[in-house]
Amino acid sequence: MEPDSIQLDHGSGGRATHELIRQLFAEAFANPFLAEMNDSALLPMVPTPLAMTTDCYVVDPIIFPGGDIGSLAVHGTINDLAMQGARPLYLSTGYILEEGLPMPILRQVVHSMAQAAREAGVMVVAGDTKVVPKGKADKLFINTTGVGSVPEGRRIGGQYAQTGDAVLINGTIGDHGMAIMCKREGLAFENEIHSDSAALYTLVEAMLIACPSIHVLRDPTRGGVATSLNEIAQQSNVGIVLEEQSLPIRQDVAGACEILGLDPLYVANEGKLLACVPGEHVDAVLAAMRSHPLGTSSCRIGQIVASDPGRLVLRTRIGGQRLVTMLRGEQLPRIC
Amino acid sequence: MEPDSIQLDHGSGGRATHELIRQLFAEAFANPFLAEMNDSALLPMVPTPLAMTTDCYVVDPIIFPGGDIGSLAVHGTINDLAMQGARPLYLSTGYILEEGLPMPILRQVVHSMAQAAREAGVMVVAGDTKVVPKGKADKLFINTTGVGSVPEGRRIGGQYAQTGDAVLINGTIGDHGMAIMCKREGLAFENEIHSDSAALYTLVEAMLIACPSIHVLRDPTRGGVATSLNEIAQQSNVGIVLEEQSLPIRQDVAGACEILGLDPLYVANEGKLLACVPGEHVDAVLAAMRSHPLGTSSCRIGQIVASDPGRLVLRTRIGGQRLVTMLRGEQLPRIC
Repeated sequence: MEPDSIQLDHGSGGRATHELIRQLFAEAFANPFLAEMNDSALLPMVPTPLAMTTDCYVVDPIIFPGGDIGSLAVHGTINDLAMQGARPLYLSTGYILEEGLPMPILRQVVHSMAQAAREAGVMVVAGDTKVVPKGKADKLFINTTGVGSVPEGRRIGGQYAQTGDAVLINGTIGDHGMAIMCKREGLAFENEIHSDSAALYTLVEAMLIACPSIHVLRDPTRGGVATSLNEIAQQSNVGIVLEEQSLPIRQDVAGACEILGLDPLYVANEGKLLACVPGEHVDAVLAAMRSHPLGTSSCRIGQIVASDPGRLVLRTRIGGQRLVTMLRGEQLPRIC
Repeated sequence: MEPDSIQLDHGSGGRATHELIRQLFAEAFANPFLAEMNDSALLPMVPTPLAMTTDCYVVDPIIFPGGDIGSLAVHGTINDLAMQGARPLYLSTGYILEEGLPMPILRQVVHSMAQAAREAGVMVVAGDTKVVPKGKADKLFINTTGVGSVPEGRRIGGQYAQTGDAVLINGTIGDHGMAIMCKREGLAFENEIHSDSAALYTLVEAMLIACPSIHVLRDPTRGGVATSLNEIAQQSNVGIVLEEQSLPIRQDVAGACEILGLDPLYVANEGKLLACVPGEHVDAVLAAMRSHPLGTSSCRIGQIVASDPGRLVLRTRIGGQRLVTMLRGEQLPRIC
């Protein structure tokens, strides 16, 4: 009989490990590449340049409104591929489990991960499971690494922003971070705040059909919109002006931020992207975004300027300007 | 000034994260793909089938005779690629750091990882760093995921063992596991036991030149030789006979195993491979192995047989036979 919690021998590499893999992981992620169960997965040639990215997920709590660490570990990684204009193809996943983790929780997370992968049309082709003694990790951590296919000639990156580009976003900011914080702190609002965790690849494809020359795509996760825009400003050596009154934010998210003393500009998102788009293509790209289920509230929030290279400037509601730096200090530990 | 230990804000995604990445990781792993610092690395097309593998490393202690968690995290992953006959090309790495981890230890591990990657001719093209509060992880955990290139038509795998194949190994068993255990338990011998942690790809290439039709390659890590051979027996539905008197084992490793009550057949290796080689090619492959620095003590330890499909049988020194099953229970937690 299967024990009802993770034991040290689930990490031994021996019989218990094999049974856990066969009965849970291999079944949930079933695909012909994983099924070979060799030291590495053998995959067909990919006839384009590749994108590769990795993320560790240590979010606390591991299950939250709008998702869990399993679905997040798919969305976060494939979104990093999509920000390069890559079609996500293959994922690997590594689980670090704490001895004593209840088996039903592990099952829920693995199945949620498998469902998110299926919905995004990506296969988990390689995996690893380690177990550490109770107290040496916190429940479970996941690494997900992704490989994607980048159409020949496609060049999207933080270094390509140009003066005159508009900065677009596909919806409200701060939802993921505040969903996590409210759950962790036990804050209750009339309507529960849900994470925006979602796979953005199909949205990106729709945007690139409307405008193949999008310069920059970035998902404002840890560190939020402010940190991502600072990165872009530095990589491209341009200034970015952000219009405070254009920033879309849910009222309950704004309220929760106020209660917790957080600035929504620094709060993590997991289903949002920032795009730097040449001025003449803005209307077409916005129309494409708004036609996609994940972009119905898309809007323009700022622009790339020649002044203040390397800096992000916020134009406030009352007409003032202030410099917005990268996040300093840790306002939201273990948000992803 | 850089703090002398890891703080929570090193995981914020903000300024401290950027500084840690720039001053440590990006410098140690320096290469043009990583240097772009986008959400994913953009890599050139690979004109062959691909291999992909992932491993989490949670070894305790993180620094041990013969290596550390950084070099191990390179060797372990590229060896899994090599066991598919793949040339290791790209690695990603994800670090989960415990708040308070001394910066000098992190530096040592990262630089050791970078050196191991350079020596193996593989690039770390993507990375991620997370920090969890003190007590929520044990010092540091690493995930390393690898992508390699598999020459068209090369088919090596646990499912291809055939009756008549010889089972070869490139040297002594149990060195890694016993190096870790002796360090952890404070056991001292006249000569310190060193981990065999090493990158096996060039050895594999030499073997495949001697015999392109090697059927199976597997590195007997967690669970040891006994577990790996059980896997092969099951995947290929063949029997495997292991000759106890042929098993190469260092005297101090045998002694340490006896003291700790461990069976060396189940002890982890990190620089060893098992090969199933058609009988007519054994001499050529052994000669190639012995000409390689990592294979000077290579030998034949067993054979694939038609009887006992799915099982591993040990022919003992005194002429008896006993069934050797997969590792049951956890004899060596956190060995890799």
